[in-house]
Amino acid sequence: MEFSYKIRYAETDQMGVVHHANYLLYLEQARIDWLEKKGISYAELEQSGIMLPVYNINIDYKQPITFGDTVKVNVERGEMHGVRIPFDYKLYNSSNELVVEAQVTLIFLSSETRKPIKCPEDLFKILNS
Amino acid sequence: MEFSYKIRYAETDQMGVVHHANYLLYLEQARIDWLEKKGISYAELEQSGIMLPVYNINIDYKQPITFGDTVKVNVERGEMHGVRIPFDYKLYNSSNELVVEAQVTLIFLSSETRKPIKCPEDLFKILNS
Amino acid sequence: MEFSYKIRYAETDQMGVVHHANYLLYLEQARIDWLEKKGISYAELEQSGIMLPVYNINIDYKQPITFGDTVKVNVERGEMHGVRIPFDYKLYNSSNELVVEAQVTLIFLSSETRKPIKCPEDLFKILNS
Amino acid sequence: MEFSYKIRYAETDQMGVVHHANYLLYLEQARIDWLEKKGISYAELEQSGIMLPVYNINIDYKQPITFGDTVKVNVERGEMHGVRIPFDYKLYNSSNELVVEAQVTLIFLSSETRKPIKCPEDLFKILNS
Repeated sequence: MEFSYKIRYAETDQMGVVHHANYLLYLEQARIDWLEKKGISYAELEQSGIMLPVYNINIDYKQPITFGDTVKVNVERGEMHGVRIPFDYKLYNSSNELVVEAQVTLIFLSSETRKPIKCPEDLFKILNS
Repeated sequence: MEFSYKIRYAETDQMGVVHHANYLLYLEQARIDWLEKKGISYAELEQSGIMLPVYNINIDYKQPITFGDTVKVNVERGEMHGVRIPFDYKLYNSSNELVVEAQVTLIFLSSETRKPIKCPEDLFKILNS
Repeated sequence: MEFSYKIRYAETDQMGVVHHANYLLYLEQARIDWLEKKGISYAELEQSGIMLPVYNINIDYKQPITFGDTVKVNVERGEMHGVRIPFDYKLYNSSNELVVEAQVTLIFLSSETRKPIKCPEDLFKILNS
Repeated sequence: MEFSYKIRYAETDQMGVVHHANYLLYLEQARIDWLEKKGISYAELEQSGIMLPVYNINIDYKQPITFGDTVKVNVERGEMHGVRIPFDYKLYNSSNELVVEAQVTLIFLSSETRKPIKCPEDLFKILNS
């Protein structure tokens, strides 16, 4: 699935390109958008007692992206196992050049205990569909 | 009272200077530091049921500040009235040139009801000291 | 003119609402969008030697906005005079409640000299249309 | 070498802990501080024509850190080879618990050509000392 985002001026730094930390925000937005397209509101998920904090990120910066450009974020779910849900990302500029590749692993966490929990059966089915 | 902060690279934008939104973060840090020097932990204040969200900001950008520089934030409390507490700011670069002037007004809010509340007597005494 | 933006998770703070500094990013995006709808690319404007840094912001926080909501930014240009261009903003949540009001004044600056300049005639005409 | 940083309120999110993207800012600050302790100003390095953009980040989030806490960032340079310089990080909270582990690889880039370059001999000696 794909998510598009127009780069903010505030996201650049004095190198004249997007600061590397901001890509994590694009990854998060694309992930939340991915969930929504499956009919899952992350806001409601949290209210229901499940949080999905980030456990690990591995990110490769292939080439910079500039203000005025639109980044396209391609996101795919990896194999879920135990309490973890991994996502694979490819980010492209508006000329369809690969700018960033990333893997992000989230864990299912109970809002109440703040301990890892197994993904509930019905949620698992939706996420795996 | 004064608070010093070394500019982060990430806080610059492609103009080659600090992005204007980041000054609000310096104002907040200086305010929390001001409270701490009075013996008030803002973290504990929130836990005790009082929040201090921002109600109004008026900010003048006099000249830019660059990465590598240290900003000095001078903060003074204004006259408290009712549910409001105002702060006056002057920000200087390391050559002691005025870079930003700002007024920030906070309101006392109950964490529980999320409604404005009068500042508790004992807190008022400390803030006014 | 109106600009819509879906709140990012990263834009919240531990009060559970959008952190006050992030509204400045929405104002900037809406302004750049306003320019684009007039046929002006801010990226190209900068490349042509004209920068529009922020000179003053006055912002009122009426009520909070939360993750999952979409903010609608209504932006209108004020009266241009000399080197300044003011904008008036009203921000609404998805229930059409006013959440923020702001006035932002920019100045025309030469990229080369970093001094204020009068707005070029042809640009003035477009901005005033 | 170690760098300490007091968490900003603005760096939390509605989970009540530091948002995961902000750790990249701590890593960057600690790196720039590491350079400075070796007598290298990153600002001057850029002016001299050498940039050090991020090439890869691998980051493990072990446990959250909260507002009011101070993060201690332990940074060590890895083995430099070719155009790359890697850094290993361990981040601790004020109870000395490991909160984050990360590896960050930078590349030497010419400001002019924006192409990778070998690290100049004299800079290499300082970085390796």
